[in-house]
Amino acid sequence: MKPGISRKSHATGPADPVTRMTINEVRPSGSRVETDDLVATEEPLEIRIDGRSLAVLMRTPGRDRALAAGFLCSEGMVDSPDAIIDITRCESRTEATDPNVINVMLDPGVEFEWDRLKRNTFASSSCGVCGKATIESIRLQFPAIEGEWSVEPEVVSRLPDALRKAQPVFDQTGGLHAAGLFDRNGHLTDLHEDVGRHNAVDKLVGTRFLQNDLPLNESILLLSGRISFEVMQKALSAGIAMVAAISAPTSLAISFARESGQTLIGFLRDNRMNLYANPERIERMEDG
Amino acid sequence: MKPGISRKSHATGPADPVTRMTINEVRPSGSRVETDDLVATEEPLEIRIDGRSLAVLMRTPGRDRALAAGFLCSEGMVDSPDAIIDITRCESRTEATDPNVINVMLDPGVEFEWDRLKRNTFASSSCGVCGKATIESIRLQFPAIEGEWSVEPEVVSRLPDALRKAQPVFDQTGGLHAAGLFDRNGHLTDLHEDVGRHNAVDKLVGTRFLQNDLPLNESILLLSGRISFEVMQKALSAGIAMVAAISAPTSLAISFARESGQTLIGFLRDNRMNLYANPERIERMEDG
Repeated sequence: MKPGISRKSHATGPADPVTRMTINEVRPSGSRVETDDLVATEEPLEIRIDGRSLAVLMRTPGRDRALAAGFLCSEGMVDSPDAIIDITRCESRTEATDPNVINVMLDPGVEFEWDRLKRNTFASSSCGVCGKATIESIRLQFPAIEGEWSVEPEVVSRLPDALRKAQPVFDQTGGLHAAGLFDRNGHLTDLHEDVGRHNAVDKLVGTRFLQNDLPLNESILLLSGRISFEVMQKALSAGIAMVAAISAPTSLAISFARESGQTLIGFLRDNRMNLYANPERIERMEDG
Repeated sequence: MKPGISRKSHATGPADPVTRMTINEVRPSGSRVETDDLVATEEPLEIRIDGRSLAVLMRTPGRDRALAAGFLCSEGMVDSPDAIIDITRCESRTEATDPNVINVMLDPGVEFEWDRLKRNTFASSSCGVCGKATIESIRLQFPAIEGEWSVEPEVVSRLPDALRKAQPVFDQTGGLHAAGLFDRNGHLTDLHEDVGRHNAVDKLVGTRFLQNDLPLNESILLLSGRISFEVMQKALSAGIAMVAAISAPTSLAISFARESGQTLIGFLRDNRMNLYANPERIERMEDG
């Protein structure tokens, strides 16, 4: 342990999602003060399947079981919580359990497709598309969403404030992505944070997956950051029909959403929003 | 090509870094107008080594040769530009060249360590640490930085404005990460943008690597987003001694920087900044 880093020992469980560090703050005058600062914890998590290493994700500790389950679900490697018997931390040589290695014990009757991640390249893990032969194969794996429901734009416009108020760690560190799930009335039902935006979504999906609560086709997923293709793909794996972000989506996120039946909302701020895909789930208040 | 997506054809070269799409804008009144919008292009790039697939990165098209070279350099797979004979787009079955597949032809005398990325797990590609046995092994691979130079805090405080003014695509889409390189006098020398923050750094590193311009140990790297461990690792591979960001670093970025001799600056805004690692390269203007 370096001086200036105070953190819980690794011996007993996962590290804190927030790490306290001694830093120097330079003020506008140029003066400098030593101060304590809270930063978002980032550590590698190795996911093993029945003892064999599958992937390493850089993540914020906490909800690791949900992260592992969500990763397997959103990557299409496990399609039912019944396939998972248990998820436990592994033992290491020097400690009782290693907080950064987690093992997923599968039902012996489940045939695990190791090649699914390996296909086409060495890739992937935190990077969704890698390891998938083509983006088209993803669409074939997860059916398009057909839910015919809609909400008033006001309901969606209120979501960012609700997310910010509920985000416990972000306000402390300024360094975490948040993924929030809302029902059709705009009530927050799930909130997950991580240094990796994919991980925040995987934690959310994995929690519901383990509760056998998928698909979430009447829910709205709100993200604090940008929306990439991989986020839309992970949302589709959970059957989420509407994804919104305070920031911008990418071109591939948009074209994927259009073909997957997902409503995609970007730049959701100041009572405005852009509808990039399947806008019919946002009710028209007035013809523009 | 879907209706509503106008983009250059893939037949002749890489896609445009910006894609024009027809979207719906919902205004505060609730009224809706159809409008044209510019979004950051995201497409997969497959990197091949002598024809064999190595990794797939989700990236913004443009500077793909630099991205491929930077990825190989920052992942420690190639240590000299002399090892690379040529980087060319591959032919596809239906088109003259496939803009999303690039082949790196290595000097036949170079022994390419395929296992380096594969090691420990299937991972990785855009996700840095994955595929590396341990974080410690990275530190062993790239020497710590020892450059004994310093700058006044005012020089660093001016960098974010300089980056924003020079960022050609970001202002259009709001969806791209920027990586800018500055000399010790605060002059911008390099600017790269991408939907992936790692890619922006890899493009920057790769450009200089191909020019045989590494190490960059008297340069300052400024990032528009957050700083993860992987960004610090990629900066270290190029010998960059100072990394600054407008937003927050993670705990692992900080501890890695402290041990690598890299100065790490976060929350660089409003003439303030936090010094997280090796603060001696920022001159003291006054004792706090």
